[in-house]
Amino acid sequence: MNIILLGSGRVATQLGQALHKAGASFLQVYSRTQDHAAKLAAKLNCESISDSSKLRLDADLYILSVTDDALPALAQQLSLKDRLVVHTSGSTPMSVLEPASNKIGVFYPLQTFSHEKEVDFSVIPLIIESNNPESLILLKDFAAKLSTKVLELDSAQRLILHVAAVFACNFSNHMYAIAQELLATRQLDFDLIRPLIAETAAKVHFNLPIEVQTGPAIRNDKLTIQKHLDSLKDQPQLQEIYRLLSQSIVNLR
Amino acid sequence: MNIILLGSGRVATQLGQALHKAGASFLQVYSRTQDHAAKLAAKLNCESISDSSKLRLDADLYILSVTDDALPALAQQLSLKDRLVVHTSGSTPMSVLEPASNKIGVFYPLQTFSHEKEVDFSVIPLIIESNNPESLILLKDFAAKLSTKVLELDSAQRLILHVAAVFACNFSNHMYAIAQELLATRQLDFDLIRPLIAETAAKVHFNLPIEVQTGPAIRNDKLTIQKHLDSLKDQPQLQEIYRLLSQSIVNLR
Repeated sequence: MNIILLGSGRVATQLGQALHKAGASFLQVYSRTQDHAAKLAAKLNCESISDSSKLRLDADLYILSVTDDALPALAQQLSLKDRLVVHTSGSTPMSVLEPASNKIGVFYPLQTFSHEKEVDFSVIPLIIESNNPESLILLKDFAAKLSTKVLELDSAQRLILHVAAVFACNFSNHMYAIAQELLATRQLDFDLIRPLIAETAAKVHFNLPIEVQTGPAIRNDKLTIQKHLDSLKDQPQLQEIYRLLSQSIVNLR
Repeated sequence: MNIILLGSGRVATQLGQALHKAGASFLQVYSRTQDHAAKLAAKLNCESISDSSKLRLDADLYILSVTDDALPALAQQLSLKDRLVVHTSGSTPMSVLEPASNKIGVFYPLQTFSHEKEVDFSVIPLIIESNNPESLILLKDFAAKLSTKVLELDSAQRLILHVAAVFACNFSNHMYAIAQELLATRQLDFDLIRPLIAETAAKVHFNLPIEVQTGPAIRNDKLTIQKHLDSLKDQPQLQEIYRLLSQSIVNLR
């Protein structure tokens, strides 16, 4: 199967490399920035282009891995008739690809990607979807080469999964960032809190988070909550976040 | 050094066991519930009591490891003159112990503890404090037997550290819990999101969280944020949390 990859960001890079390792063959990498296209194309051993009119029309699979807000315009630019076109977005409906081809689908890897750090795709859930049964089977087989966890979801289910991922990943990282910020106000090193973060994540590896919640809010320890709120009096936004999240935890009791 | 441990909860149990392993000798375990005292005392090879009047007065160190709101009343009950009395709380000032003794201090292990899962104390930061230099040295030496990370902080600094810990641990776990809840509305298994949680935590092991933030908010991708908010329209509290945390991330840009 010959692939053309459109995009050169974190997801495109990590997914491209993982597919390349798994033996997939790439024809082209497209990016609006020629440098970015060239860098990734070198890794995938294929041609790089920055002009979408130079896109070859004979690939078996076109993977659009660009930011969510760039997807509609990119799909409008393409005219690939019956070639299979997929995107890798969690929150974008498959239908955004309708202008590009009659055969469309989704190939969404549920993970957070870094530019440098390689991830092990074999444990990453791959969420697939297609508007036709043949492409769905093709995507399923294709995904199974990368990961043991392949799941078919429709666009509405995938959106909820993506919102859940924002909470579990983006927002939990923001909680770490707030901790970093608070420690910095007292010249305390972030390193102090790293074992705590590791243990917190490790706990839910075998348990459900609701069952292992700790801290003043789940005990409804109003005295400690008030002490913490007082200590945040100079940071009203953090105080508001603290109050709202504590209330949300108290509501679970 | 002979120790009396007051408390039988998660922190008391884990700390007691770690000290026992490190060769510390316990005289008594006190808990208001005799069963709890007996269970922990068996592990620490010492006497159990549930009546504070039976407390021996000849220990070298009294560790009060009870909930924050139970500390003031417990300290009031004790009359230990010049015996060293410490608590293990992150957010309680050392001064709460003044009624109990003239020699007081703090021994706060910065970690989240489970009832069953044992933790490796050697990497846990131990935060110490005392109202006199001799006890401080004693606590420092004592802590160094358990952990390589011993740090002296005053009560105000410790409070900020504890607030940071609430964000990094309790609130990030709550983010996982919200994800669990959202997945459940679509009959999706929490297991889907476990690799994402592990990777999110792993990322900040070598990086600072502010540097590795991903997701729609840090890109200020308003379209995706709005799609997510719309998908939460039946859960106004989650919607409010989503909005507030996204705004807080946008403000970092």
